[in-house]
Amino acid sequence: MAPTKKGILERLNAGEIVIGDGGFVFALEKRGYVKAGPWTPEAAAEHPEAVRQLHREFLRAGANVMQTFTFYASDDKLENRGNKLTFTGAQINEAACDLAREVANEGDALVAGGVSQTPSYLSCKSDKEVKTIFKKQLDVFTKKNVDFLIAEYFEHVEEAVWAVEVLKGSGKPVAATLCIGPEGDMHGNSPGECAVKLVKAGAQIVGVNCHFDPLTCVKTVKLMKEGVEKAGLKAHYMVQPLAFHTPDCNCQGFIDLPEFPFALEPRILTRWDMHQYAREAYNAGIRYIGGCCGYEPYHIRAVSEELAPERGFLPAASEKHGMWGAGLEMHTKPWVRARARRDYWQNLNPASGRPLCPSMSTPASWGVTRGHADLMQQKEATSKDQLKQLFDRSKNH
Amino acid sequence: MAPTKKGILERLNAGEIVIGDGGFVFALEKRGYVKAGPWTPEAAAEHPEAVRQLHREFLRAGANVMQTFTFYASDDKLENRGNKLTFTGAQINEAACDLAREVANEGDALVAGGVSQTPSYLSCKSDKEVKTIFKKQLDVFTKKNVDFLIAEYFEHVEEAVWAVEVLKGSGKPVAATLCIGPEGDMHGNSPGECAVKLVKAGAQIVGVNCHFDPLTCVKTVKLMKEGVEKAGLKAHYMVQPLAFHTPDCNCQGFIDLPEFPFALEPRILTRWDMHQYAREAYNAGIRYIGGCCGYEPYHIRAVSEELAPERGFLPAASEKHGMWGAGLEMHTKPWVRARARRDYWQNLNPASGRPLCPSMSTPASWGVTRGHADLMQQKEATSKDQLKQLFDRSKNH
Amino acid sequence: MAPTKKGILERLNAGEIVIGDGGFVFALEKRGYVKAGPWTPEAAAEHPEAVRQLHREFLRAGANVMQTFTFYASDDKLENRGNKLTFTGAQINEAACDLAREVANEGDALVAGGVSQTPSYLSCKSDKEVKTIFKKQLDVFTKKNVDFLIAEYFEHVEEAVWAVEVLKGSGKPVAATLCIGPEGDMHGNSPGECAVKLVKAGAQIVGVNCHFDPLTCVKTVKLMKEGVEKAGLKAHYMVQPLAFHTPDCNCQGFIDLPEFPFALEPRILTRWDMHQYAREAYNAGIRYIGGCCGYEPYHIRAVSEELAPERGFLPAASEKHGMWGAGLEMHTKPWVRARARRDYWQNLNPASGRPLCPSMSTPASWGVTRGHADLMQQKEATSKDQLKQLFDRSKNH
Amino acid sequence: MAPTKKGILERLNAGEIVIGDGGFVFALEKRGYVKAGPWTPEAAAEHPEAVRQLHREFLRAGANVMQTFTFYASDDKLENRGNKLTFTGAQINEAACDLAREVANEGDALVAGGVSQTPSYLSCKSDKEVKTIFKKQLDVFTKKNVDFLIAEYFEHVEEAVWAVEVLKGSGKPVAATLCIGPEGDMHGNSPGECAVKLVKAGAQIVGVNCHFDPLTCVKTVKLMKEGVEKAGLKAHYMVQPLAFHTPDCNCQGFIDLPEFPFALEPRILTRWDMHQYAREAYNAGIRYIGGCCGYEPYHIRAVSEELAPERGFLPAASEKHGMWGAGLEMHTKPWVRARARRDYWQNLNPASGRPLCPSMSTPASWGVTRGHADLMQQKEATSKDQLKQLFDRSKNH
Repeated sequence: MAPTKKGILERLNAGEIVIGDGGFVFALEKRGYVKAGPWTPEAAAEHPEAVRQLHREFLRAGANVMQTFTFYASDDKLENRGNKLTFTGAQINEAACDLAREVANEGDALVAGGVSQTPSYLSCKSDKEVKTIFKKQLDVFTKKNVDFLIAEYFEHVEEAVWAVEVLKGSGKPVAATLCIGPEGDMHGNSPGECAVKLVKAGAQIVGVNCHFDPLTCVKTVKLMKEGVEKAGLKAHYMVQPLAFHTPDCNCQGFIDLPEFPFALEPRILTRWDMHQYAREAYNAGIRYIGGCCGYEPYHIRAVSEELAPERGFLPAASEKHGMWGAGLEMHTKPWVRARARRDYWQNLNPASGRPLCPSMSTPASWGVTRGHADLMQQKEATSKDQLKQLFDRSKNH
Repeated sequence: MAPTKKGILERLNAGEIVIGDGGFVFALEKRGYVKAGPWTPEAAAEHPEAVRQLHREFLRAGANVMQTFTFYASDDKLENRGNKLTFTGAQINEAACDLAREVANEGDALVAGGVSQTPSYLSCKSDKEVKTIFKKQLDVFTKKNVDFLIAEYFEHVEEAVWAVEVLKGSGKPVAATLCIGPEGDMHGNSPGECAVKLVKAGAQIVGVNCHFDPLTCVKTVKLMKEGVEKAGLKAHYMVQPLAFHTPDCNCQGFIDLPEFPFALEPRILTRWDMHQYAREAYNAGIRYIGGCCGYEPYHIRAVSEELAPERGFLPAASEKHGMWGAGLEMHTKPWVRARARRDYWQNLNPASGRPLCPSMSTPASWGVTRGHADLMQQKEATSKDQLKQLFDRSKNH
Repeated sequence: MAPTKKGILERLNAGEIVIGDGGFVFALEKRGYVKAGPWTPEAAAEHPEAVRQLHREFLRAGANVMQTFTFYASDDKLENRGNKLTFTGAQINEAACDLAREVANEGDALVAGGVSQTPSYLSCKSDKEVKTIFKKQLDVFTKKNVDFLIAEYFEHVEEAVWAVEVLKGSGKPVAATLCIGPEGDMHGNSPGECAVKLVKAGAQIVGVNCHFDPLTCVKTVKLMKEGVEKAGLKAHYMVQPLAFHTPDCNCQGFIDLPEFPFALEPRILTRWDMHQYAREAYNAGIRYIGGCCGYEPYHIRAVSEELAPERGFLPAASEKHGMWGAGLEMHTKPWVRARARRDYWQNLNPASGRPLCPSMSTPASWGVTRGHADLMQQKEATSKDQLKQLFDRSKNH
Repeated sequence: MAPTKKGILERLNAGEIVIGDGGFVFALEKRGYVKAGPWTPEAAAEHPEAVRQLHREFLRAGANVMQTFTFYASDDKLENRGNKLTFTGAQINEAACDLAREVANEGDALVAGGVSQTPSYLSCKSDKEVKTIFKKQLDVFTKKNVDFLIAEYFEHVEEAVWAVEVLKGSGKPVAATLCIGPEGDMHGNSPGECAVKLVKAGAQIVGVNCHFDPLTCVKTVKLMKEGVEKAGLKAHYMVQPLAFHTPDCNCQGFIDLPEFPFALEPRILTRWDMHQYAREAYNAGIRYIGGCCGYEPYHIRAVSEELAPERGFLPAASEKHGMWGAGLEMHTKPWVRARARRDYWQNLNPASGRPLCPSMSTPASWGVTRGHADLMQQKEATSKDQLKQLFDRSKNH
């Protein structure tokens, strides 16, 4: 790292906005390098050029953090993925660190080593066993000297706390994000309670990532912030949501939507939705603002463009865009040129082009309407015979 | 090129399926390398690693053709794009050829040099002047020894005929595609008439690209085929549609949709829509099947997977997918594992997640932007009956 | 009838607009007097006050015709309806005539005796048998001295021709409407061919009723008019469509929609849709403009209000409405008062309030009810191109 | 009243279900007898046959209560309605009582005299003045000897309390319903607080009517019940919701929806939605279950049919229906006959037939998206010049 680069806490303490990158597994799945299902990051070693290119695109879009592509790269997860791997877990984690560093050095970005929830925890292994898993990844991050650490995508705050406890051992700054919504984690801890636990475990930055759409995630981080402040603690806040609209999902997030993971296209956020998200996150006092599944580089660019007045500069990739689609002024059709303005895009409600599709999914997609499903469980079926009797009686009523 | 590689006509004459790549300008716009508006391909010279990576992803997805990234790379267009370029037109065209060749050599793909409609034609320059423009690009393709040529994205068959006449001079096979729908070109030539003109001009492969969704494009190519056969001529057929649902657009295609180009997300086709498209194209007798704007590598992979029984093999990137999402069998949640099957995805009607958005757009969406209403009056009214019914409310009185 | 009342042909020959009433079976089903399924009109005898009241409401709404409530009142149909009737067929038909006359005399309306398609025809009885059925109803109409006759709701032009031949025997003017769409009748006769047959059989007024939404019906009548004119014949034209939006139904009309008949609510037309319909019908040269299933009195009032400039007066019920909702000027909330204007309602795209529902139905909606899939295969596939694209997903393989 | 008829409190105390009628102003607006805007009930005197018929239809549908058609029949409201009335306020109130009594005597129904919110309250008149208004209507109810009294459609609990205090003077049972949602009344009183005030003022039955869809209203009454029980009080509960889906309305209810009152059609509940509502209301412990605006007789019939097992009989109008559409067994088309069953209708998600319409309305209907409207107020517009500076700066970054 160039000696002049400021660390993550220096930036946040100074009130700077830190823009995160987007999620890698969904983006690389679409590009052909990640398998939906296992979602493991062996591409870091197998196809480094593809991973490097995605890092570079997020950097150009304005990201200040290159997260190592080590999601689900714990040994227990990698062993679970079906096919035998050509590379060891250590090789994958090391390759991911090298790629992140290489691209981070091309601009003003830090490298963050990341760990995420483990199969070991879900199969009820002890804290010691789970912590051993995290320690193995941390050893690579320490060797490769990443700039800070992120424990992300935890459904259970307990496991996240264990991860933070391990990562703290490195002496590097630690961020922790849960994949929860406003209802809290899978054990029933509210967002505020979760955040307090994470801060007490040593995380300097707390928040959420994945599972819910941007505005839901901002709402959840607000609840975390309230909890931390009520407890008299201090922290920085981060948010890295989905780039999908998920108004209809339950506490388990988008995993439960019938469209997950191969028919989420109609839900993808536009760049204009990202402007709104970035502004709302900023207004909520969140200063580490990034993305997760569904994000493409242009989504991060939109975050950077919305916050350009506060940051004082536009990202490199805006050279190919311009604020609010200013590049359209060069279009050949006059009515498209007329769209090169903010109020046009801000006010547009885009059509789905899908007359056969509803706005929201329900278990009805599987054959039963929500209300009636409850109903049918609450009451006994009325038999035809019984009804006949009722009808006959009513005639004499 | 390796000596064993078969040429495009050899393949088509032998009845093989040729899978095309997807469009570059939309994909690279999202990645931060193309500016919407001018849509020019200077990235071939400026950021070769980004263009190379996209070629490689389409190759892995099963594409047999690497089109040079030379869309709108004619000198008159490049000069028109607002900013001064760091590279000359020749440099951009040459760089594009080198990148396409480099990646084509990594697999079983051919290189196709491409030209597209010119500002010169639209500003009523003579055939001689317009042909000079095409000839300049052709000189590069000849020097770089591409495998065949494509004249694509023409709204007026007259200009496409001129392009074919120039390209024929090279002695290489020539394909020609118009960006028209079933109503024909902007001069009122029906798809059948257009195809006959192109074949008579010397194109061995004819079809459509861009502007409309896959099923509309297949329908248009069917009309072309009928016209060619009725005229007693012979040709091969190709189709490279949008990856957007466009049930509501008029004869000018998706350019006229209010969502173009920055709010088309809800319209993006799923991989399962691509299966349907690939099958319908095949059933229509079309053997060169690719994509255009909106295509990501996974869309082309879906085309390859649908036609795997006919082709006899899966593309490289299916290693990270499996037929009908078979990779989901490795997912941690049992209800997601249960989605690893064809009938689940084939029958799913995905929700939009957007309760505020309609299924189809109309000029009414432009109610806030009166400038567009005026523009609409300047253009010719669409003749489609259904659209008339939907749109022409305001004409009643 | 008061001596000054002009007959139906006098009115039409003079270029007057004749406004029809709306359908009775759907309106009275909602009020509790008609059973969906048999759809028979025994209420005319059983509950005359309910039938009289509906006549009166349509009269107040501006209708110039009171159709006798004799839909499906042929003896063969009445016998088929499950329960034994308290009243004979003749009693029902007579009661219906009396009610229509009583209300017609309260204003400027004519009485039209109506016959409709018969079970006898559908079970392949001879023309003589079918004609005997019609003759029995005609005898009542003659005895009760109705002003003119309507043969309506025929899916097969052949049966409608037989009906016209019977009705002509009375010497009264005869109108004939089929329940067909632009694709023609169930035997493949185009709308133009159907209309020519009806005119040649002696109908002075021809058109369509029921089964399709207003704009589709207007389109079908236009095709009828073209056919009649091409054949060098003359006729008056009438249209009595559904008050439901049916963009997605096949040649059998709304009967085939999965929502028929008990979940059509989201498709109900607003009064503003009726303004558009009335204008388009008028512009198409149709002068007898009414309604069928789904119509409530306010729908007919909207037709009357739209055509008030041409007719020179508003209907009685406009006293409780005012053009374009002018009555809202008296609302207590200022933002509702601001809606008392034409452009507000003309430009409004009403939300469905149903985020779980799609815009269009498909057999996929019937996924849960496999019995229907089989039934669908027994019927002829619809030929509409657009629908094929939408629906035939499952036919790919 | 026949001597054997049980009073409202006897019924509720015995645990019986009391089914209410539906709202009159919307139903009679569609029939041409009420003017949207003033919404006054002069039709009781002007067109008694229309009002009598609607009473009769609700009676046939199973209603146990005939509410006098005296909504907005206070003198201050009647004077406010724009046109001069032919009848005095007293005449209208008396006519309404006579009609309700006449039809109630045809079956097992009680007559309820109703008062509703007044312009006097909204223009800040004193409690004495407002009470004088209510007293005038009560004098008619007393003279006509109605069976009980309802104070309904109050946005402010304070005015409802005043109404209850007046009505209590009669010695008759008193019910009181507010038109509020779960957020409480316009002064910020929660549903629980409102209910406690009403019970303390002397109302024996409390609940909500109008303004929100059925499930929202049931939720609100649940909150009322909790409040009353927590306060150690006792009451009976009633609910008379809209027959429109209103997922998108704010605390002011459907009045604020852009579709109010003339484009609500797509939101109309089906009879099957009514089954769900009736069951949920019953399960919530509510025993007086009726309807308000948007209700047609078939909606009340559906409530009666759902609760037939508990009540022990079907309503008279079920003779023309049958449970779960059993009458369809008589339909001519086999695939329609196959719909004569509960699971078909319970599982159906009806399409809107309106591809141009969204699922939910927003202020965007008026030109600004909700989120951005907030946003735009929160931040200053970024000027084009400022952005130019940012962009130039970023190039040197």
